[in-house]
Amino acid sequence: MRKIKIINCRVFTFNEENEIFHRGEIEIQGDSISYIGKVREYNDETAQEGYSRVIDARGQVCLPGLINSHTHAPMTLFRGFADDLPLMTWLETKIWPAEDRLQGEDVYWGTLLSCLEMIKSGTTTFNDMYFFMDDMAKAVLESGIRAVLSRGLIGLDEKKAALGLEETEELISRWHKSADGRIRVMFGPHAPYTCPPDYLQKIMGKAQQYGLPLHIHLAETRFEVEQSKELYKMTPIEHMESLGLFNFPVVAAHCVHLSPHDIEILSRRKVAVAHNPGSNLKLASGVAPVPQLLEAGVTVSLGTDSAASNNNLDMLEEIRLASLIHKGVSGDPLVVPAYTALEMAFRGGAKSLYWDDEIGMLKPGYKADLILVNMEKPHLCPIHDPAAHIVYAAQSSDIETVIINGEIVMENREIKNMDEEKIMYHAQKQAFMLTGGMVDEGSAD
Amino acid sequence: MRKIKIINCRVFTFNEENEIFHRGEIEIQGDSISYIGKVREYNDETAQEGYSRVIDARGQVCLPGLINSHTHAPMTLFRGFADDLPLMTWLETKIWPAEDRLQGEDVYWGTLLSCLEMIKSGTTTFNDMYFFMDDMAKAVLESGIRAVLSRGLIGLDEKKAALGLEETEELISRWHKSADGRIRVMFGPHAPYTCPPDYLQKIMGKAQQYGLPLHIHLAETRFEVEQSKELYKMTPIEHMESLGLFNFPVVAAHCVHLSPHDIEILSRRKVAVAHNPGSNLKLASGVAPVPQLLEAGVTVSLGTDSAASNNNLDMLEEIRLASLIHKGVSGDPLVVPAYTALEMAFRGGAKSLYWDDEIGMLKPGYKADLILVNMEKPHLCPIHDPAAHIVYAAQSSDIETVIINGEIVMENREIKNMDEEKIMYHAQKQAFMLTGGMVDEGSAD
Repeated sequence: MRKIKIINCRVFTFNEENEIFHRGEIEIQGDSISYIGKVREYNDETAQEGYSRVIDARGQVCLPGLINSHTHAPMTLFRGFADDLPLMTWLETKIWPAEDRLQGEDVYWGTLLSCLEMIKSGTTTFNDMYFFMDDMAKAVLESGIRAVLSRGLIGLDEKKAALGLEETEELISRWHKSADGRIRVMFGPHAPYTCPPDYLQKIMGKAQQYGLPLHIHLAETRFEVEQSKELYKMTPIEHMESLGLFNFPVVAAHCVHLSPHDIEILSRRKVAVAHNPGSNLKLASGVAPVPQLLEAGVTVSLGTDSAASNNNLDMLEEIRLASLIHKGVSGDPLVVPAYTALEMAFRGGAKSLYWDDEIGMLKPGYKADLILVNMEKPHLCPIHDPAAHIVYAAQSSDIETVIINGEIVMENREIKNMDEEKIMYHAQKQAFMLTGGMVDEGSAD
Repeated sequence: MRKIKIINCRVFTFNEENEIFHRGEIEIQGDSISYIGKVREYNDETAQEGYSRVIDARGQVCLPGLINSHTHAPMTLFRGFADDLPLMTWLETKIWPAEDRLQGEDVYWGTLLSCLEMIKSGTTTFNDMYFFMDDMAKAVLESGIRAVLSRGLIGLDEKKAALGLEETEELISRWHKSADGRIRVMFGPHAPYTCPPDYLQKIMGKAQQYGLPLHIHLAETRFEVEQSKELYKMTPIEHMESLGLFNFPVVAAHCVHLSPHDIEILSRRKVAVAHNPGSNLKLASGVAPVPQLLEAGVTVSLGTDSAASNNNLDMLEEIRLASLIHKGVSGDPLVVPAYTALEMAFRGGAKSLYWDDEIGMLKPGYKADLILVNMEKPHLCPIHDPAAHIVYAAQSSDIETVIINGEIVMENREIKNMDEEKIMYHAQKQAFMLTGGMVDEGSAD
């Protein structure tokens, strides 16, 4: 069995006791952590014995891997394709026509590009909802990343609605708990406004049958809330509660427009919220009431949403935004302090994915998903509090080493399982076939 | 005379016509740009002739250097020293006691650290207000960066008030237009609440005598506005206008809390505003009405404020925040589009520093202050619109080469004029002497 030792780094465990080891050691056996604590006694002869790798990480900080609790990986192909447009113009004239042309090959290369970007920015697990899920799963398998996959379900057309559920069942049978346990599956009803009540009931029936959680967009825009009130005399949250959705484990993306009653429901029914500050700002959806959600004891995690509305998959940016915008908007400098923002990306992420028995903190028996951050940079100097630096000053390029499921997938920023140039070449090609763009690099003036 | 040629990069000039060259060439002679346009005919034999350097920058984007229009460079020593505290607790128990212990040596190393960070993140000019300005100027001289320096003037104590003006005059005589024209001086009245009217009158007298602009903090917090209304029955902006401050060229930092009348004054009196979104969010000061300021035709530039309240000097982050938060807060996805956010950091910055006859755009005769950004990165793929990528997806580590005043100060991320490790060592040491922190790296568990 593969056995790796990391020594001499400062370790933030984010475990139940929030233990920190200033000069720590982490031992990995197979896919899991077997020891974590102060660096143990050893001498030069015995240090390497029995280990396939010993990483001396002095000057670095070790953290759990970042968990992106809401994204659509293949949409990275549409990064920067259409910015600074009103939401409906963006969807109707740009995104939807391009998505109509989408094939499995696009999803494969788009997902690989996203996995590359995510690993290079310290994300070890992502939660996705899209289609051509077989192709997405293949890319996840190859990249070495951990993922929770949902086939996006839209119930506006009966045939497509049925197909979506069929494909979800195929996805489960082929990929759930596959890839050495790195892939899990959820049900993915897109949103209340795209899934009529009877379709949602069907989805819940299937979720019951398979015992799997659900991933849904909820209360993202003011328009959605107004429409729900008109149609159902209820907010989207109240509507979903009335249908029984919250009898299931649910991760609800966005939750920007919430009433106090909505927050009470989310808290009482233990619904996890995936907060997407960057996307909510860029699309002008608004600012989610995160301090109030935290106050009410709701599990809040962080997501990037897709790179079409972000425009990257950089979780450190989401952590920073989550820690900054709520202070500025509330006028209270004490809300969402640095450590809380980090917890959202670790434990909050794991809880939102209903996977907190294996990931989201560093402790013996947990999966070895971790990152090493190089703190010896001018923009991280002087070091008073390394955790605050990660939140308020670091950038994702400071993350040098990433381990997922016990495997070193990036070391000194070198990616192990993927060919960066090949993926960028194919992604660019597929993107331009979809969007009608032209590779003009060097071809014109 | 030094002659440099950069070829094959995509050039965004940000000149009056916003010209873009997809395969561009820039020629630099001495400290200035001598040619900019499409790449010219040359063959392998003649390409290098007469040039001290030819940089083939294919795959890169060339932009004007970033202009940071409000910071306090030496406070980088207090980066992460005190986060997540209410403003007055932060100032009274942390920042002020540490600043009381500050010496010239601290300012020297703190400024060098900031110059290092700024150059590594593409900033070629910064606008500063602090004290021990002789030491700051020395660091600016050594680093190769361009700067506008103000001795911070506080008029609450008569002796200190007089000393501040004396030191400003010394600063002007020693450093104004020095360092091959890289250093300029302004007058730096700290704020209306620290400069009583008679002291402001004295400062204006001196500004008149020397013909120099002023740099001041204005309308940063709600408390400041309330206090001004109580004392003077006027907002800080109205108060400053009544005293005649806006008869001078002024750059006003923050301007978060503005009435429609304030905005009308800033527009009519052509006051430049330095917008500091990161610091305003982190200290919970609020969100400045930037869309309204732009609508009124006010010059808006971007600043990081100090690393004690940011916590870095990364202008790409400020550009991104400026483009994101106003969309989210206003609910309008069309406000502050990508190109506008970039203009704030280039032309807006130059205008705010009253230096737009020499910097802020790329054109013949202008100073050669420019950056090259490597676009061949997973998080910048595919490339639909490179300018949008810089705003919404890039990180400062993508900036590979920086030229200031015709001198290559960073190439392939290697700094030319400074010893990175030496500066970080000294900055960390000085910081811990000021804050009482301990270097615990490796010393304890």
